[in-house]
Amino acid sequence: MKHKSNETSICPVARSLDVIGEWWSLLIVRDAMLGVKRFSDFQRRLGMAKNILSARLKRLAEAGVLEIVPASDGSAYQEYELTEKGKALQPTLLALRQWGEQFMFSPGDAHSTLVDKRSRKPLAKLEVRSIDGRRLGTDDIDIIIPPEPQRRRVPHPSRTSRRVGK
Amino acid sequence: MKHKSNETSICPVARSLDVIGEWWSLLIVRDAMLGVKRFSDFQRRLGMAKNILSARLKRLAEAGVLEIVPASDGSAYQEYELTEKGKALQPTLLALRQWGEQFMFSPGDAHSTLVDKRSRKPLAKLEVRSIDGRRLGTDDIDIIIPPEPQRRRVPHPSRTSRRVGK
Repeated sequence: MKHKSNETSICPVARSLDVIGEWWSLLIVRDAMLGVKRFSDFQRRLGMAKNILSARLKRLAEAGVLEIVPASDGSAYQEYELTEKGKALQPTLLALRQWGEQFMFSPGDAHSTLVDKRSRKPLAKLEVRSIDGRRLGTDDIDIIIPPEPQRRRVPHPSRTSRRVGK
Repeated sequence: MKHKSNETSICPVARSLDVIGEWWSLLIVRDAMLGVKRFSDFQRRLGMAKNILSARLKRLAEAGVLEIVPASDGSAYQEYELTEKGKALQPTLLALRQWGEQFMFSPGDAHSTLVDKRSRKPLAKLEVRSIDGRRLGTDDIDIIIPPEPQRRRVPHPSRTSRRVGK
């Protein structure tokens, strides 16, 4: 579905989704984090149409999430590597993964699991905390909206709703 | 864009994206976390077509992310409230937000900020860590794929690529 761009939103969630909010894009980044580098490998693993994969890779490269580099084995292939910006999506992917593990599998329904290479144990659960380490729920958080002159335009959370910061 | 369902994938990221991988869905959840409850408020804030908003709310309710409840003021309106499953998307939204804050704004380009209500300070940065607290980068992590008989079907990371676990 086509949607209006959020590239001038004041909300960082909205701007992020502008780049990676498309279903395939995050699965491409997931596979890149597992070491996949070549078009044919992404294509085989994701089972997506070549023209769509090509468009998604191009968009991720334009957004600075992936970069296109010569093949590491000296062959004529191109490879796609995560940039620092791309690697910084690790907490987003882990959050999605942990949510899926908790809510999208029945007991006994096997799923892939990320482990720490050194201990071979699953990763720690991501937790929302204050700077001084307290666990925070949705009711413990306010949103601060920048003053009007600095803003660009909607959509963004307004001040009118409950629980929205002063 | 229509895509094949991931509802039987062994990858928790893929299953999660099946429910919330659509651009609008996460913005609806974001606004619900800020206290938005009514159709007209979602519609005004998100600026999306009513038929699309309606379809997305329905999908989120069917997936158990939102539930439909009578209006808290006793009026005839319906309200949409996050379930526990919905509230558990908080780390995912925070991860997206923090990534956006870091990479999607130029210096001086104002953005909304979440703060801890008690201290009025921004939240701690989400970090990927081992169970015993070590910071982990993408190279410190392996993926464990369940044995074949328990699996359903593709797509999932295979064992053939670099950095994929034994």
